[in-house]
Amino acid sequence: MSAPALAEEPPLALRGMGSFHVGGREAVVAGKPVKEVLLVPGGVPARIDPNGTYQVEAMYVQYHLPATPRGAVPLLLWHGGGLTGVTWESTPDGREGWQQYFLRRGWATYVSDAVERGRAGWAMSPEIFQGDPVFLTKQDPWERFRIGAGPGSWRTRTALPGTQFPVEAYDAFMRQVVPRWTTTDAAQLAAYRALLRRVGPAVVLAHSQGGLFAGRAAQAEPGQVRALVLVEPAGFGETTPEALAALKDIPVLALYGDFIDQDQRWPAIRQRGLDFYAALRAAGGQVDVVSLPERGIAGNSHMMMMDRNNQAVAQVVHDWLAARGLWR
Amino acid sequence: MSAPALAEEPPLALRGMGSFHVGGREAVVAGKPVKEVLLVPGGVPARIDPNGTYQVEAMYVQYHLPATPRGAVPLLLWHGGGLTGVTWESTPDGREGWQQYFLRRGWATYVSDAVERGRAGWAMSPEIFQGDPVFLTKQDPWERFRIGAGPGSWRTRTALPGTQFPVEAYDAFMRQVVPRWTTTDAAQLAAYRALLRRVGPAVVLAHSQGGLFAGRAAQAEPGQVRALVLVEPAGFGETTPEALAALKDIPVLALYGDFIDQDQRWPAIRQRGLDFYAALRAAGGQVDVVSLPERGIAGNSHMMMMDRNNQAVAQVVHDWLAARGLWR
Repeated sequence: MSAPALAEEPPLALRGMGSFHVGGREAVVAGKPVKEVLLVPGGVPARIDPNGTYQVEAMYVQYHLPATPRGAVPLLLWHGGGLTGVTWESTPDGREGWQQYFLRRGWATYVSDAVERGRAGWAMSPEIFQGDPVFLTKQDPWERFRIGAGPGSWRTRTALPGTQFPVEAYDAFMRQVVPRWTTTDAAQLAAYRALLRRVGPAVVLAHSQGGLFAGRAAQAEPGQVRALVLVEPAGFGETTPEALAALKDIPVLALYGDFIDQDQRWPAIRQRGLDFYAALRAAGGQVDVVSLPERGIAGNSHMMMMDRNNQAVAQVVHDWLAARGLWR
Repeated sequence: MSAPALAEEPPLALRGMGSFHVGGREAVVAGKPVKEVLLVPGGVPARIDPNGTYQVEAMYVQYHLPATPRGAVPLLLWHGGGLTGVTWESTPDGREGWQQYFLRRGWATYVSDAVERGRAGWAMSPEIFQGDPVFLTKQDPWERFRIGAGPGSWRTRTALPGTQFPVEAYDAFMRQVVPRWTTTDAAQLAAYRALLRRVGPAVVLAHSQGGLFAGRAAQAEPGQVRALVLVEPAGFGETTPEALAALKDIPVLALYGDFIDQDQRWPAIRQRGLDFYAALRAAGGQVDVVSLPERGIAGNSHMMMMDRNNQAVAQVVHDWLAARGLWR
């Protein structure tokens, strides 16, 4: 682990890059004691009054714009639960991630941190965010994200045979994991909708929990979404007739990796997806469901954007978008 | 606020870009109840056992490498208290920040989030991080960062006359503010040292609280630091004879903005700096202290990398580095 690993790729020409926060609201806290806080050792104490108005529940977005754009619209990359936009950046073992993959192919990429995660920041809890945050031990994603062979596999560090996940970099992956709440869905959705209104129309590519926000944000802002790519979604849009109808002109690709049938929870999570896609189709929508192993792409975990064959998986997405006229 | 603001600048050619986490340790939590958690509405409940081993106290780093490098070494940008690497990215009003300024001039830039901030993530508190985090109301930086005219100025939204801070984008700045602890200095310093060992030798450019870590990390890893640029540092290196001697071959630039003499706290913070620089010089070190108003650059707040004249301030830094042979 010395200098950063660099793929042997040609230079990357950008028209621009930058970042912004979007969405959120003000929240007021009252009735707490004022403190004198020494913010740096030996420094000048500051009087910190926690009472007053806070700016909360915005999300963070970083964009990179290719000098020669080929995507018809921007590509928004929405992460899953307990994670941040780092999901899409370099892989834990230092290869290029999907952010770079799509940028190199001429997509304007917008990588974001949802409300409460990463550079979005989080608000006083339980005063503003209700309930307690959830923290994940090293054991949890190993056994739950189809890296290890299910419950009990962490104790012996037994990976699924044939996994594409770079298990030697598992600790580096766990450094990407951040706390999350289970009570902030409405705030996260509101900020995603504000993002769509600001940079849409766009393609939304969402992972795991991000499927919840992608489905619902697209249903609320259908004019701002040209396609939905759902990578092993763990949440979905609403199923009222109106909500399903809102998606009928938005093509959907749903991607699933390997080892699902042998997992304790993933057959049920996939079935919820299949039910949702069937309802969408019945409402006139168009959904393509791709099981990577059935395409001959084997060994993918829940974190397929980090797997060793992450470029082959990205190409399935890219080719699907190109076939829908969204890349030229 | 629709599409992102783009400076009318030429395209930016990169040799590569990416991110990684560095540093940290494992921490064990025990004796807490196991929970069934519904992570997404309507989903499949997960059994979350908070007991076990966590990967904690790493920091997050994103790098952009110019296709035509001109900096002799990488430039590491370290943020201040309650903030993240977003400090160096686009300004709150959407102009290019110092990240883009230095990248456009051929510096390899490494923008990081310290332990506990942003994409570095944070650990269970008070089990792993001691004490309570500090949250900042909208009033606090307005009155403490020399944007408004000191205590009481938030109520009337009175900015300092002649301020360069983009006050119309103050809410956007407050969206960048994140919680911080006052008990994690040792962990933050350890991760900064790990970063220096991984990507050094380098120039370290640190703001406010970052001055503490820049000074101490350079004292602990003097071979990895070619120059220190301290932007209104609020913390400093150690003052033992050995620690001061460690910096004697590392040139230091300290930058101060406007309105300091009329502030309640900043004269004392600056004086602590002047005392430290005097001690460094007495130990054989070389320190240049620049007061921007004395250079004819007026109106700068504590957040000078975001001020309207942020490029003029960056040029003072760039020219100083070039004069030290660190740019060709």
